[in-house]
Amino acid sequence: MHPVRFTAQTSSDGVVERDFLIGEIPGVLWSPATGSPHAPLVLMGHGGGLHAKTPAQAARARTLVTAHGYTVAAIDAPGHGQRPRSADDERARTGMREAVAGGDADRFESVSVRYALDLAQRAVPEWQATLDALQQLPEIGADTPVGYGGGISLGTAIGIPLTAAEPRIRAAIFGGGFFVYEQQLAAARRITVPVQFLLPWDDEYVDRRSCLDLFDAFGSAEKTLHANPGDHRRVRWVGVDEQFLPRHLGTAK
Amino acid sequence: MHPVRFTAQTSSDGVVERDFLIGEIPGVLWSPATGSPHAPLVLMGHGGGLHAKTPAQAARARTLVTAHGYTVAAIDAPGHGQRPRSADDERARTGMREAVAGGDADRFESVSVRYALDLAQRAVPEWQATLDALQQLPEIGADTPVGYGGGISLGTAIGIPLTAAEPRIRAAIFGGGFFVYEQQLAAARRITVPVQFLLPWDDEYVDRRSCLDLFDAFGSAEKTLHANPGDHRRVRWVGVDEQFLPRHLGTAK
Repeated sequence: MHPVRFTAQTSSDGVVERDFLIGEIPGVLWSPATGSPHAPLVLMGHGGGLHAKTPAQAARARTLVTAHGYTVAAIDAPGHGQRPRSADDERARTGMREAVAGGDADRFESVSVRYALDLAQRAVPEWQATLDALQQLPEIGADTPVGYGGGISLGTAIGIPLTAAEPRIRAAIFGGGFFVYEQQLAAARRITVPVQFLLPWDDEYVDRRSCLDLFDAFGSAEKTLHANPGDHRRVRWVGVDEQFLPRHLGTAK
Repeated sequence: MHPVRFTAQTSSDGVVERDFLIGEIPGVLWSPATGSPHAPLVLMGHGGGLHAKTPAQAARARTLVTAHGYTVAAIDAPGHGQRPRSADDERARTGMREAVAGGDADRFESVSVRYALDLAQRAVPEWQATLDALQQLPEIGADTPVGYGGGISLGTAIGIPLTAAEPRIRAAIFGGGFFVYEQQLAAARRITVPVQFLLPWDDEYVDRRSCLDLFDAFGSAEKTLHANPGDHRRVRWVGVDEQFLPRHLGTAK
């Protein structure tokens, strides 16, 4: 097993941000400057084409740290951020770009689905190795509650099979903004932990019905859908339940 | 114009409950025992077969009074609670009961739609007369912010045309649990105030797609859908934004 190797550290506004490597996976850990050990740990998955420190994700992580005393971890998805891209990665990205430029919605969907499925298969074991390594840190430990903190798009395409496979995750935030495929529905049916699902109501490419079918598929007794107007880049989230993670993971003592 | 005539008053747990008559419309007004004048006013519409003081509605009204200092008003819908039923009311109720007992879903829907449409047409002018009369009370006044506070089922079937017709309503809570018909969609398109929409995900009779179409139809720039598992009698609401009304109506000074 690869241990966590910290490579940089900064601190601002009461939040410590530490870059790390676990084997070849780069990531970042946000934690309170003066926190308690064994605070709940939230895993955050960035959107397609973005990376672990994408500003919106970093801002959300910092809010979770300061509001609840959580530790938040993010890693670059395969082929994203600082990570090398394979020839397949490049082909998929070029294919999606060309399909959008050419207005070919069917091709955009088929390339996106193939790419998301491939990324999810590669990312799930990486997240599990990351979780193994993080739990070896004395300030985290093996017994701390773990949640998946979003977000929409690729973060959910990876988060759903991860949560289905990973009993350590006790609650999960998912969302729309990507093409739902049969393997996602099958994984969603195996998920029984509480789910919060964020649906951008007017996605430009994705038929909202497929995301509603995905929400329907979760096996969880507690699941809540929040929908707001806008597509997944321009949605303005209003009225989302900010107590979802604290209710299921607790807060830091 | 009929004035508000108070007929009974009780007080408990810091909430004053006053029964009233406005002409022949019976209703109830909940307000803080020690409150400020001109507090925001919330109108609540009960579900089909129920009445203004239905326990769940009374409990919700009391929460709004104690949490935000609001005044809350409810009236019995036509043919409901203390009000006489016409021969048409009786026929509709019998028709719905027989359709459910006989498992005739199509008839249940057609009788329900006709009845809801009839009730809404009778109830909108009653609500407007109620609002006129309440605003004559010195503790309410003409300038206080007004919201429609739900609920689902008949409360929404009446609340949508009311909100579409009534510029005094600044924000509205609606919900699923009833058969959506074309006149509802048309009224929803005319509504532009912020809307919170509560969708029981698994209604026994109502196809959720019709309620999703209704949410889609609202002309409001701010609208948020919250969905939870369960039908409209058994849904357990989790994660609903309790700050929706305070955000749009303010709280009592």
